[in-house]
Amino acid sequence: MTDMNRQVLLTLRPSGIAQAENFTIREAAVPAAGPGELLVRNHYLSVEPAMRGWIADTGNYTKPIELGSVMRSLASGVVIESRHPDYREGDCVSGWFGWQDYACITPDQIVQRTTASEMRASLGILGTNGVTAYLALTLIGQPRAGETVLVSTAAGAVGSAAGQIARILGCRTIGIAGGPDKVSRCIGEFGYDAAIDYRAQDVSAALAGHAPDGIDIYFDNVAGPISDAVLPHLALRARVIVCGTASIDRWTPWPTGPRVERHLLVKRARMEGFVIFDHMDRYQDAVGQLRTWISEGRLLWREDILDGIEACPDALAGLYRGENDGKRLIRLVGDDAGGNQ
Amino acid sequence: MTDMNRQVLLTLRPSGIAQAENFTIREAAVPAAGPGELLVRNHYLSVEPAMRGWIADTGNYTKPIELGSVMRSLASGVVIESRHPDYREGDCVSGWFGWQDYACITPDQIVQRTTASEMRASLGILGTNGVTAYLALTLIGQPRAGETVLVSTAAGAVGSAAGQIARILGCRTIGIAGGPDKVSRCIGEFGYDAAIDYRAQDVSAALAGHAPDGIDIYFDNVAGPISDAVLPHLALRARVIVCGTASIDRWTPWPTGPRVERHLLVKRARMEGFVIFDHMDRYQDAVGQLRTWISEGRLLWREDILDGIEACPDALAGLYRGENDGKRLIRLVGDDAGGNQ
Repeated sequence: MTDMNRQVLLTLRPSGIAQAENFTIREAAVPAAGPGELLVRNHYLSVEPAMRGWIADTGNYTKPIELGSVMRSLASGVVIESRHPDYREGDCVSGWFGWQDYACITPDQIVQRTTASEMRASLGILGTNGVTAYLALTLIGQPRAGETVLVSTAAGAVGSAAGQIARILGCRTIGIAGGPDKVSRCIGEFGYDAAIDYRAQDVSAALAGHAPDGIDIYFDNVAGPISDAVLPHLALRARVIVCGTASIDRWTPWPTGPRVERHLLVKRARMEGFVIFDHMDRYQDAVGQLRTWISEGRLLWREDILDGIEACPDALAGLYRGENDGKRLIRLVGDDAGGNQ
Repeated sequence: MTDMNRQVLLTLRPSGIAQAENFTIREAAVPAAGPGELLVRNHYLSVEPAMRGWIADTGNYTKPIELGSVMRSLASGVVIESRHPDYREGDCVSGWFGWQDYACITPDQIVQRTTASEMRASLGILGTNGVTAYLALTLIGQPRAGETVLVSTAAGAVGSAAGQIARILGCRTIGIAGGPDKVSRCIGEFGYDAAIDYRAQDVSAALAGHAPDGIDIYFDNVAGPISDAVLPHLALRARVIVCGTASIDRWTPWPTGPRVERHLLVKRARMEGFVIFDHMDRYQDAVGQLRTWISEGRLLWREDILDGIEACPDALAGLYRGENDGKRLIRLVGDDAGGNQ
C-alpha cells in the first residue's frame, strides 16, 4: 500500500477512442472520509468498451467526463475508513470509485456489496457485464426455447455471457468473433452451436449456412459492417438488441450504412437500445440468477487482468484493438489468477 | 355495366415504382361463379403505396405479383352471383378482388362485409388505412396522454388517421407533409398541433422548435431523409413505428443513410416494423372503434377518386408523385363524392 493516491485523469478529449496520451497519472494525498463518507482502497478497476461513450463530448446516456477529473469507472475494493453507519472497515464493495488507488465516496456510489472472493466477478460476470447480458437478452430479446440467437463480440465479457444464457434458456446460439482463438473459445468454452470468424469468413454466407431459417434474436455489441451483414438474415418478428456499437470508431462525422427500415418492415422486426443503468431495480435479482448458474457450472467467464495503475491509460485503446481475452480489469492489490476457466 | 371484364395486368416488372407502361388493360369474359364461389362486381378499387412492394421481385412480406396476372388490390363491390351459403346476391363486400371489373372469388378473399354507404370507407378509414393507423399506433407506439407524436405523410390516408387518433388519445401531434396545402390541412382538418412542410422547411430545425423535449412516438411512413432528420430528436424511450418507406424509390442497389444504432442506444429507443396482415384478428374491433370516432365527428378523412379502370395504370405512380389528396380510389360504379370533408 502506498501513502499517496495515484489517480488517472482524463486530460485530453479524444475525437475517437481514447489513447494513452489522453490520460495523465497524478499523485495526490490520500483523502480522509468526511461525515457520512467512506474511504475505499480499490483492488480492481474496470475497463469497459462503454467508456468510449462516457469520454466523448457528444450526446450520450451519461454526462461526459469532465477534463481534468478522475476517469469514471466501476471498481471494487475494501472500506478502510467508514463514517457511515451502514458500512464498516473491511467491507467489500463495488461501485463508481474511478481509476484511482483510493476513493472517498458516499454510499450512493456503491452498486453492490461483494466479498473478497467475488471482488473481480462483481465487475464482470456478477456485475455490469453479466447483468447487461441477462437483462438485455430477457427484457428486449424475450427468448423462447428453440429460437436462434446470434451474438456479436461473442467471446467478450457481455457477449460470452449472452451466448451462454441464451443456451441455458434453450436457444440455438451462433457467435461472431474475430480470430481463430476467440472462435474456438466460442465453441469450446461458451457452448455456441456455431461460431463465425468475421475476419476470415464472409459473415452473410456463413449465416446463410448456420441459420437458414433466419436469426430470431441478434444481440449486437458492435454495429457497423458485421451488423449490416446480419440484418438481411433476420427471421420474421426478430429482435435486435442494440447493446453497443464497438465497431464504430467515431460518430463525428456521423457514419452511414445500409438502411434498416425495409428489413424491419418486411420482417416486422424490432430494434431496441439497452443501457443497464435503466434497470438497477432488477440488478440484484439478476446477480442472484447468474450466481446460481455459475454454482451449477453452467456459466463460465474469462478475465484479462493487467497489473498496476500504470496500465490504465492504454487499457481502453487495447480493448478496441481487440487484444483482451475476456473481461479486462486492472489489478491494484493481490496476485491471484482471474476467471473460472 | 359492361358484359366484358376489363382487367389490369402487371405485364412489365419495374425496377422502381411501377409506371403506366408496366400495366396492360385486357378485356376478358365475365367469369361465372363455380361451386363455393362468388362473383363480385367491383365498385371501387384501392391504390396503395404498399403496392410498390407487392410488385417488386425482392423480398417482401407477401409473394411478388406474378407477371401477366391481375394486379393485386383491395376492392369493394356487390355480390352479383353466389354459390356459397354465407353470401347472397346484393351483399356488399370488401377484400382482395384485384384491379378488374368483376372478380370470381372464394370467401377467404373477403376482408370484411360492408354496406353500400361504407363501400369506399371500407378501403380506407374503415379498412386497411385506418386499421393500420390505429393498430400500429397503439400496439407499437403505446401512446400515453401528454406524449408528443410525430407523423410523416401526415395528410395521407394512414398518416392523417394516425395523427387524429394520437390526438384523440391525448397526445400532442406534429405532422410532416409536402407543400402548403397539405400542411394547412394538417392543422385545419386533422388537428395537428404543428405541421412542417418538408419541401420548404429544415425539418430538424423545425422539430427543435416544435418538440424541444423530443419525439416520443414517430409514426413513419417514409424513411429516407425525413426520417434521418427525425432520429436525432427522439426522446428517451421513444418508439419508431416503421409503417412504410414511401420516400425510397428503390432498394436495388440498397440505399444507405445515417446509422441508427447510436440513436437507439443513447435514447433506449425502439424501432419496429408493422404490417397489418399480422393483425387480422384485431381488424373488426379496430373498425368498430374507428366507426365510433367517426360518428362522434372526431375522425375525418379525405378521398381522392379517379374515375374508370383506365385510370389504374398511372394511379400508383401518381401517388408517388404526391398528386393525391387523401386516400386514392378508382371508381368503377357510381358518382357520389368522397370523404367526409
